[in-house]
Amino acid sequence: MPKRIPVVEKILSANDRIAQENRARLDEAGVFSINLMASPGAGKTSLIEHTVQRLARQFRLAAIDGDIATSIDADRAAAAGATAIQINTGGQCHLDAVMLRDALKQLDLIEFDLLLVENVGNLVCPADFELGTHKNVLIASIPEGDDKPYKYPGMYKDVDALIVNKIDLLPYIAFDMDYFRRGVELLNPGLVTFPISCRTTEGLDEWLDWIKTNARP
Amino acid sequence: MPKRIPVVEKILSANDRIAQENRARLDEAGVFSINLMASPGAGKTSLIEHTVQRLARQFRLAAIDGDIATSIDADRAAAAGATAIQINTGGQCHLDAVMLRDALKQLDLIEFDLLLVENVGNLVCPADFELGTHKNVLIASIPEGDDKPYKYPGMYKDVDALIVNKIDLLPYIAFDMDYFRRGVELLNPGLVTFPISCRTTEGLDEWLDWIKTNARP
Repeated sequence: MPKRIPVVEKILSANDRIAQENRARLDEAGVFSINLMASPGAGKTSLIEHTVQRLARQFRLAAIDGDIATSIDADRAAAAGATAIQINTGGQCHLDAVMLRDALKQLDLIEFDLLLVENVGNLVCPADFELGTHKNVLIASIPEGDDKPYKYPGMYKDVDALIVNKIDLLPYIAFDMDYFRRGVELLNPGLVTFPISCRTTEGLDEWLDWIKTNARP
Repeated sequence: MPKRIPVVEKILSANDRIAQENRARLDEAGVFSINLMASPGAGKTSLIEHTVQRLARQFRLAAIDGDIATSIDADRAAAAGATAIQINTGGQCHLDAVMLRDALKQLDLIEFDLLLVENVGNLVCPADFELGTHKNVLIASIPEGDDKPYKYPGMYKDVDALIVNKIDLLPYIAFDMDYFRRGVELLNPGLVTFPISCRTTEGLDEWLDWIKTNARP
């Protein structure tokens, strides 16, 4: 008796196909790339500034900054020493693979080792759009509150690393780190986490070591 | 010679039509309603808690809380003394008029004077979806940084009032209030603004007075 053989195939979305192409271009050029995601004001640009300043001697750095409007972020990344490109999404609440593809065309990729992509400030939508970068990193921030993993699970569950920024504000804010970490652990067990302060630079060394380890395997 | 007469008609989107219906229902029941929008962690729920506690003697209060997941926010609003309803958007990054309509059906509106709607934490998308509430209010937060009006103009340009929360953190954070206010003024001249701290309760009286003035015209 003939049996029906189920054929299950992963059909890639248009976005995911272009993300794969982006990854191939980055790999071919030997560029290690990170997609930084966070709420508005969690410290994406500050982290990029510190990372660029501290790694400029070892890596040739590029930054691609996504925002609704202005070039404030790319200006800051450029001032820190990166080759910077601003994407203005014109209202769209996230970057997608097409936007990254278009931005990559403006870089001679062979000239770079490390690319930092700053997504639009948003704790919901960017999680749904793969860009093709090697790592997705989420920046949480102490003033946002300790309940964010529970309330924005989509953003926490698939990232490769978590930065908890603004730990210098812990004395002034009610933030239960154990409650926060339990929420993260439920969604993304064992997630590598870096508590840092871009203001005092505490914890930055561990983050930079993680980049170095991953960028030069 | 016949001239072509241009016929320009505002076609309401499906969302806007339902928003109008929501407004009509609220007006008919005599419920004054506010849509609170902000980034994740800016203090929407804390503001609702304070507002409910302080106005409970004068107003019969309801809260409708929108989140990706959990009922944390509605639980807090209920604990503060409001009749609270949680909307879980299941991933969607904003409330829309249909979600509010469905939530309103769960309230006997004639039993209430004041409705506080807490939108999903997001500084981009909620601005595009009218709910039908009487006022749209944005909560900014000191730790988010002073450049947010420039980078998220869509959210600032159409709101009816602006709350600047967490002013108790001003001593610990580089935040240029003049630069922030200039950005707001460019987008929304003369916007009524309430600097407050939900932690110390500084500035809350002015916010509560604004509600009383608008709710009982």
